Order: sequence, then C-alpha cells, then structure tokens
Amino acid sequence: MPYSATMGTTQKRTPTGAAVLQPDVTAAITEAVLDELAETGYGKLSMEAVARRAGVGKSALYRRWPSKQEMVMAVLSDFSLELATVPDTGSLRADLDAVLRALLDWLTHPRFSRILPDLAAEGMRNADVAEAVRAAIGDPRRAIGAGVLRRAIDRGELPADTDFEMALDLLAAPVYWRLSVRRAPLEPGYLDHLADLVLRALQGGRP
Amino acid sequence: MPYSATMGTTQKRTPTGAAVLQPDVTAAITEAVLDELAETGYGKLSMEAVARRAGVGKSALYRRWPSKQEMVMAVLSDFSLELATVPDTGSLRADLDAVLRALLDWLTHPRFSRILPDLAAEGMRNADVAEAVRAAIGDPRRAIGAGVLRRAIDRGELPADTDFEMALDLLAAPVYWRLSVRRAPLEPGYLDHLADLVLRALQGGRP
Repeated sequence: MPYSATMGTTQKRTPTGAAVLQPDVTAAITEAVLDELAETGYGKLSMEAVARRAGVGKSALYRRWPSKQEMVMAVLSDFSLELATVPDTGSLRADLDAVLRALLDWLTHPRFSRILPDLAAEGMRNADVAEAVRAAIGDPRRAIGAGVLRRAIDRGELPADTDFEMALDLLAAPVYWRLSVRRAPLEPGYLDHLADLVLRALQGGRP
Repeated sequence: MPYSATMGTTQKRTPTGAAVLQPDVTAAITEAVLDELAETGYGKLSMEAVARRAGVGKSALYRRWPSKQEMVMAVLSDFSLELATVPDTGSLRADLDAVLRALLDWLTHPRFSRILPDLAAEGMRNADVAEAVRAAIGDPRRAIGAGVLRRAIDRGELPADTDFEMALDLLAAPVYWRLSVRRAPLEPGYLDHLADLVLRALQGGRP
C-alpha cells in the first residue's frame, strides 16, 4: 500500500476519513473481532461491540466490510490460512507432520478453540453462515491439503485415485473430534500415530 | 413399574402428585427437552419452557431431575445410547458397518444434528457441561464401540495392542466432521469406504 505508507510523512494534509485503510486500525479491529467471537459467539456479536473494543468508530468497520458476516469471515479467513500454510518438505510423511502440527496450532489457539465449535453450532441454525465458513475457511484450507496430496501422487507416494475428500477428513477430523467435541487430551505421540495410520490407510498394499 | 401400571385401573384413589412417575409424562418431557435443545440450545433452555411445551407443571420436572443439567443429560443419554446399540454380527467388518450406520442415524437425527454441535460449543465455554456430556453420552457410547473392538481382538481380526481411543476417533470423527462441521454431503458409499480405510489402518500388515 504505497499511498497509505507515505500518508504519515509527506501527505499530512490527507483528511481523516479518506478512502485509506490504516493497517494498525485493521489490526486492532481484527483482534477485537477474534476476542468478541471467542467471548460472545457469532450469534450475539455486534458491530458496536467490536468497534468499542477496537477503540474505533463503527464507520471504520463499514469502510472495510459491508456487513458483520463479511467482516467475521474476512478476519477468520486471514487468521486460518496463515496457520494452514505448510512448506513442501519433499516427502509425504514430513508434509503430513507439518499439516497436522499446523492443524493442532489452529484448533488449540486460545481464541480459535472456542470460535470454531461456535461457528459449527451456528452453521446448523443458519445455512448462510455455514456456506460463508466453507468459502472463507474450509475450501482454502482444503486446497492447501489437496496440494500436499497432489505432490505425493506426483512423487509416487500415493495412488493416483486417492480420494482427496476422505483423506483430508481422516487427517483433520480426529484431531477436532478429540479436542473440541470429546474435549479429551491428545496424548504425546498422537499426531505421529495418526499420521502412521492415515498413511497406511491411503497407501493400501504399498510398502 | 407394576405400581404405576396398575394406577389407572385398580388404584384410582392414588392422589395426583404421589411419588409415582407416569411414563407418558416422562415421554412428553423427553420430547420437549429434545425440541427445546434443538431450537434454543442448551445455554438458553429453561425449565419453564420445557414444562410449557410438555404441558406439565415444573414440579413434574423437578420430581424427576434435580436440575436442568441433570434433566438434559438424562434425556440425551437415553436417546443416544438407544441409537448406539449394535448387535454382535460375528465379524469386525459387519460390526463396523452397523456402528457407522448407527452413528449416521444419530448424527443426522433431525433434532440431534443441531443438539450435538450446540453442546460442543457450550462445552468449550462451560467445563461442567463438557464433563456431563462425556459422562452421559461419550463414555457409554465409547464403551459400546470398545466392545466391538474387543470382540475383533478375541477373533484374531485386530492386533491385541490396538489403540482403542484412536480407532474409535477414526471411525466417528470423519462422519461428524463431514456432516456437522464441514456441512458437506456424504456421498453414496462413504461409510463403506471409511470402514475399508479404517480396517486397513488398524489391521496393518495383516491380510
């Protein structure tokens, strides 16, 4: 954002309220959205409460997003995709380790650990929210996971007819189920063991 | 309940309010609890609303359970365990098919499909509720699943050192994740494919 970056130095006369989005305000709003979601949940979250917590006016929110739903989904998408990015390690097993560790960081993040179950519950009552969550978080995260599987097929580590949807369910679902539905602890070595079992399931008769 | 069963015929003079729990009242309350949980969620559910919906006085509720939490957990436990019961078919594969079909019936039950995600979200905010859900639903259902695995070990179909917790997570979690978190459809053959993969993962190098 070159325009915004020079604002504070050479363009002091730019009036407040101009069509410039200050990154520190965006950052404060982002934090406020995550805090409000974790504390009050999506259903009761209000633009007023977010603005108050961020120390900005409501207009600062509406300048960025047209509605509560778009604001929440944009914030959650940025947050979730940042934590989903994994390097190409060159082997499926090491890639899966990275995917599972990133998943664990995401699901155990102090605020997000409350946010995702709340959104799942909200999604059962409100199909719009379910669809928005899928578009903002689910699909992009799955695209990253699909990239890991595609690279493994290219390397000959997985059969070409691997069922991507099932493979990604098998990786992510047990961790969420254990932590967020059963609320039981992950014993040490859980992720390793899970990766072993999923690899064995997907590789079938292969050595 | 022989006493209760004869009440309407030979013991007409038994006063209302006696320490007799009429099964039809219990059934009406049970339905009302499930309806209220599905519509308003655990957090906002009130004894008043349940009594009103069931067409009984609040005393009929308190005669049965000392608190909202105990009432809800008793109702959910009965409902959930009834749907978890599976026969011993004599083979692991057929047992797993029965377990997965019972799980699907449970998770797609019109009311319960909303109730479980709501309880998971509530459990993240309230450790008491999480613990009560585990004791009333999670542990007894897992005991049934563990029985299936134990029979398979006895038959030589699974290694004696099978990790029961992981095995049960692998069976249940993908179905919940797909239906209740991702809100994506189960394609035809999903349960069969899942059973194949989980069997392969658990049986390891066995034929």
